[in-house]
Amino acid sequence: MSTISPPHNPESNPRIKKIFDDIRNTRGSDFINNLWYYLAFDVDLLENTWRDVKSVMAKPSHLDPMTKELIYAAVSIANSCEYCIHSHTAAARAKGMNDKQYAEFLSIVSLAGRTNHLLNSIKVPVDPEFNFENKDN
Amino acid sequence: MSTISPPHNPESNPRIKKIFDDIRNTRGSDFINNLWYYLAFDVDLLENTWRDVKSVMAKPSHLDPMTKELIYAAVSIANSCEYCIHSHTAAARAKGMNDKQYAEFLSIVSLAGRTNHLLNSIKVPVDPEFNFENKDN
Amino acid sequence: MSTISPPHNPESNPRIKKIFDDIRNTRGSDFINNLWYYLAFDVDLLENTWRDVKSVMAKPSHLDPMTKELIYAAVSIANSCEYCIHSHTAAARAKGMNDKQYAEFLSIVSLAGRTNHLLNSIKVPVDPEFNFENKDN
Amino acid sequence: MSTISPPHNPESNPRIKKIFDDIRNTRGSDFINNLWYYLAFDVDLLENTWRDVKSVMAKPSHLDPMTKELIYAAVSIANSCEYCIHSHTAAARAKGMNDKQYAEFLSIVSLAGRTNHLLNSIKVPVDPEFNFENKDN
Amino acid sequence: MSTISPPHNPESNPRIKKIFDDIRNTRGSDFINNLWYYLAFDVDLLENTWRDVKSVMAKPSHLDPMTKELIYAAVSIANSCEYCIHSHTAAARAKGMNDKQYAEFLSIVSLAGRTNHLLNSIKVPVDPEFNFENKDN
Amino acid sequence: MSTISPPHNPESNPRIKKIFDDIRNTRGSDFINNLWYYLAFDVDLLENTWRDVKSVMAKPSHLDPMTKELIYAAVSIANSCEYCIHSHTAAARAKGMNDKQYAEFLSIVSLAGRTNHLLNSIKVPVDPEFNFENKDN
Repeated sequence: MSTISPPHNPESNPRIKKIFDDIRNTRGSDFINNLWYYLAFDVDLLENTWRDVKSVMAKPSHLDPMTKELIYAAVSIANSCEYCIHSHTAAARAKGMNDKQYAEFLSIVSLAGRTNHLLNSIKVPVDPEFNFENKDN
Repeated sequence: MSTISPPHNPESNPRIKKIFDDIRNTRGSDFINNLWYYLAFDVDLLENTWRDVKSVMAKPSHLDPMTKELIYAAVSIANSCEYCIHSHTAAARAKGMNDKQYAEFLSIVSLAGRTNHLLNSIKVPVDPEFNFENKDN
Repeated sequence: MSTISPPHNPESNPRIKKIFDDIRNTRGSDFINNLWYYLAFDVDLLENTWRDVKSVMAKPSHLDPMTKELIYAAVSIANSCEYCIHSHTAAARAKGMNDKQYAEFLSIVSLAGRTNHLLNSIKVPVDPEFNFENKDN
Repeated sequence: MSTISPPHNPESNPRIKKIFDDIRNTRGSDFINNLWYYLAFDVDLLENTWRDVKSVMAKPSHLDPMTKELIYAAVSIANSCEYCIHSHTAAARAKGMNDKQYAEFLSIVSLAGRTNHLLNSIKVPVDPEFNFENKDN
Repeated sequence: MSTISPPHNPESNPRIKKIFDDIRNTRGSDFINNLWYYLAFDVDLLENTWRDVKSVMAKPSHLDPMTKELIYAAVSIANSCEYCIHSHTAAARAKGMNDKQYAEFLSIVSLAGRTNHLLNSIKVPVDPEFNFENKDN
Repeated sequence: MSTISPPHNPESNPRIKKIFDDIRNTRGSDFINNLWYYLAFDVDLLENTWRDVKSVMAKPSHLDPMTKELIYAAVSIANSCEYCIHSHTAAARAKGMNDKQYAEFLSIVSLAGRTNHLLNSIKVPVDPEFNFENKDN
């Protein structure tokens, strides 16, 4: 159950068709996931969201593609975003993640959950050694 | 301001000294960060927490060390754990992260924050293509 | 699947009937949403929750009704409360929100998600210009 | 740094004085913590908040006082509410919590953080055995 | 829909069988909930998770069993972990929680949600009276 | 303490100067808040973040400026983003919010925190009346 109704035949709108074509070309695949069909209820929102996803996830990068998906999934887990967890876990698999790596990812995410709660409880002062502000660039 | 008072001279307790020595040896460094001094108020809690951190972060691994710190930091950001953000961002730098990689990490984390909120708002149904349950192992 | 079982024939209990009648009168509608049927498992909890919702959402106000629902929905999105997201998005529509306004609401909520994560990452010091404490009232 | 400025001499306002007196009488103590001084910037908000805190935390109860504070602190930790963590940890101590109990509380809170993240990652289906809905009351 | 596929006949693996037997013996019940079947996709993750749950929830304790489940459930609610909410609410019932206690638990959890948001909004300075750091142990 | 070091004399970089000039022109003010000075450590990140903030917050709109800031602040409160809470509360004041409106905003945000936690606890099924999916557009 969604809070919006995706438009029928979204690609009859030329602005939407252009964005969907760019999604297909950028990803080298005909598959367009539900997110984009639903966002098509407002073309500006669709356009801005795709522009941002494309500029971060599909550009030449200083991190490898699987790592980027794991970072994305890690944030999504902590934010309880069910759709994002499924889409970025699937994307990490598509970019080479095997079961051993996924199990290790899960062990890191759950350890972080553990120590985040521990430190949010006891409020340990941050060590000055961790400070990078005002260091020479 | 912390909710607990770290013990004076924690290493006068032999169980604590043993754990602190293991932290030093495992990390190859004399630096012990505040977390462990504070946790020393209860030796069982200290011991269990270190055992878990060591088993996840210091064992032979299917992911590279910098990636592991970035996943840890990503969860900590979404959970607003100030101490954890500082310690794992510093650890990622210590394991080779440069400014370009950090800026890209920030762009992924903030994009995830954006789409997590968007999808938690509109509740798009998860595509069946993302389902890995009941696939052959 | 809920953690409680709503009572059968809740309005056979006169305290519950009185509250349900007040909900109908306050809202000018016969529709009572599931929340109140489930809370009826404990009359004190039902009574306190309705008293609070009524005093905040149904009283003479310094903000317009649609704005109040949007603020409510924004918090609910960030907290991943599925029921609240649906009920307050529907309430905002009932109070006049059109699709253009909803799309703009979504763009603000998702931008906030983006910059919240960015600033929780880098921990920028708060500008003194934002301080209202100790200003003359 | 707060977003509001607490009023000078709040008890010169008779409505505020009455609420502050009720706080003192209910708690059997002259100490009024900062929260109430700041909320006094708006008497309605002060009055509603105190009414709710009093009705939940100070009434005859089916749970013991220390347990109630621990539940309150647990939620506050997961929500990263620094003030609430400090005030309810202090309240739990005032109601008898010793260091051993606090260490055990921390181990439960951090274990919950761990498994919450694990299960939010892998999305295990809820066992039907956990369902209490539609059971006979 | 889960991100992993639980193995068929997990107990044909002797390490898994040993862990499942320990779960049954520790709990005095033949029922093994879905979490463990899914975690069995990676034996190390299964083993570490059970070791931690057992050491915190099943050991001799300074808090009573129902209180421990309520603390666990409180964190899980704030983290929106659906599986954990159902499993630990059911566990609290199994350890004696009645409907009156559950309603009171809900009133505390929701009051905490209320004041957490209020204090995260206005950022009241923490009273020095709440400080336990550097007190004599 | 920040995780990055803002550059000295950022406006000696012509790309940064152009962005800072656009911030000043768009807002009609010489004041540039700390966020932008810190983001200047990476010009791409600065440019993308400002482009997005400008396109959402400074464009012709279907919602009034104060409402937009209140929605932004509401999300920031639920996400515990201290910087964002201060900057958007200050912005709401700058756009006309008075103390009575702020107190009402706080009462809505904290009521949402209350019912979000209540409904995340008991998992009430969403009423079909709230469904807008597949309605005629």
